[in-house]
Amino acid sequence: MAYELYYWPTIPGRGEFVRLALEEAGADYIDVARQPRGMDALMKLMDEVEQPPFAAPFLKDGDTIIGQMAAILLYLGARHGLAPKDPAGGLWTHQIQLTIADIVAEAHDTHHPIGIGLYYEDQKEEALRRSAEYRKERIPKFFDWFETIIARNPSGSGYLVGRSLTYADLSLFQVVEGLLYAFPKATKRVLKQTPKVAALHEAVARRPRIKAYLESPRRIPFNEDGIFRRYPELDG
Amino acid sequence: MAYELYYWPTIPGRGEFVRLALEEAGADYIDVARQPRGMDALMKLMDEVEQPPFAAPFLKDGDTIIGQMAAILLYLGARHGLAPKDPAGGLWTHQIQLTIADIVAEAHDTHHPIGIGLYYEDQKEEALRRSAEYRKERIPKFFDWFETIIARNPSGSGYLVGRSLTYADLSLFQVVEGLLYAFPKATKRVLKQTPKVAALHEAVARRPRIKAYLESPRRIPFNEDGIFRRYPELDG
Repeated sequence: MAYELYYWPTIPGRGEFVRLALEEAGADYIDVARQPRGMDALMKLMDEVEQPPFAAPFLKDGDTIIGQMAAILLYLGARHGLAPKDPAGGLWTHQIQLTIADIVAEAHDTHHPIGIGLYYEDQKEEALRRSAEYRKERIPKFFDWFETIIARNPSGSGYLVGRSLTYADLSLFQVVEGLLYAFPKATKRVLKQTPKVAALHEAVARRPRIKAYLESPRRIPFNEDGIFRRYPELDG
Repeated sequence: MAYELYYWPTIPGRGEFVRLALEEAGADYIDVARQPRGMDALMKLMDEVEQPPFAAPFLKDGDTIIGQMAAILLYLGARHGLAPKDPAGGLWTHQIQLTIADIVAEAHDTHHPIGIGLYYEDQKEEALRRSAEYRKERIPKFFDWFETIIARNPSGSGYLVGRSLTYADLSLFQVVEGLLYAFPKATKRVLKQTPKVAALHEAVARRPRIKAYLESPRRIPFNEDGIFRRYPELDG
């Protein structure tokens, strides 16, 4: 039975981290909200089930419904060889993913520092201040950490964990993509200082299934309704 | 061998969610950074290990080091009967915990909407605006979700998951504690609308090990260096 992925149909957002894992795994899945009446199905499911997710994305696998991007990837990683099989390696991969979730949440807050209920235009001054710290302090701090992890990976594979690709690598690829979209100048500067992160980003883009996916209509382009938005004034 | 918990020694912060699980489990643990030269040990470990956590808290169990609050609780829950043993129940508990991590992160942003590198006083106007949305929109939205989950728990136990207490219940207790400290007026109003959350909070406080812990010097009081801060102007 195909997985059902539920996420807002017009933005890559947090759903994209799940899509990348499904695509790399070659898994059958239905992107429900992009089908006719799919948004009705999404809202209905959130309202009615015994274990309702707090927010999209969520994944339905038969009777199991899983919300929270990192929890979905924990689930998929174990099933599709996208995480180490040993518990310690699995937990380490998940820990990295949770830190990726943090840099993603902070990326969203660069354009919405005051609240998600307000338009960007109503918090633009604050967004300028928050983005400056994000560009100068936060992106380098996170990227230095990713660089260190790749460098200390005893296998020397160039991946974050172990000898082969994990969902955390796919997610880091998406973070780099998103930041290159939102903050191209700042991100290119940081990538020069973190060549292992840059190389990992390029290696993921070359993987056959990922490459085919990125060129397909299934890949939703970044845009100014999503998490990673291009407001040139915020790139400093 | 005792667990070693590493967290900043003067605030409850995210470390407190781990402490509550360790205390309820009756586990032996050393709160490393509160020991002599403990902060040196914390910094050294973050700098030197093969799998360095991005930030505190982290837990050391023999050779295993785990960062990220939710990942630590996933690990401890399985070992100490603080989560269901079946995979679906364990994942559901973890999903709730990740959503609790989100409301905690947003609580921090109420007093630091522009950036963690600046003092509160340098972002007070922005904090007033962000807190208003947090009080009026976000706390009710999260608490309604918790209320729904408790209500839909088929066991009718009053807990979030299944028939018995999980680490998610302990964490929700801590969120209510923190919000009652930071936003007493707003939080009391919301708790009147979410009686099951209020009852769970009280039930956790009455558990013998938790009660003894809360009265002990091991419990660090909330203060204005932590995540939950009392700035009366933000309580509206």
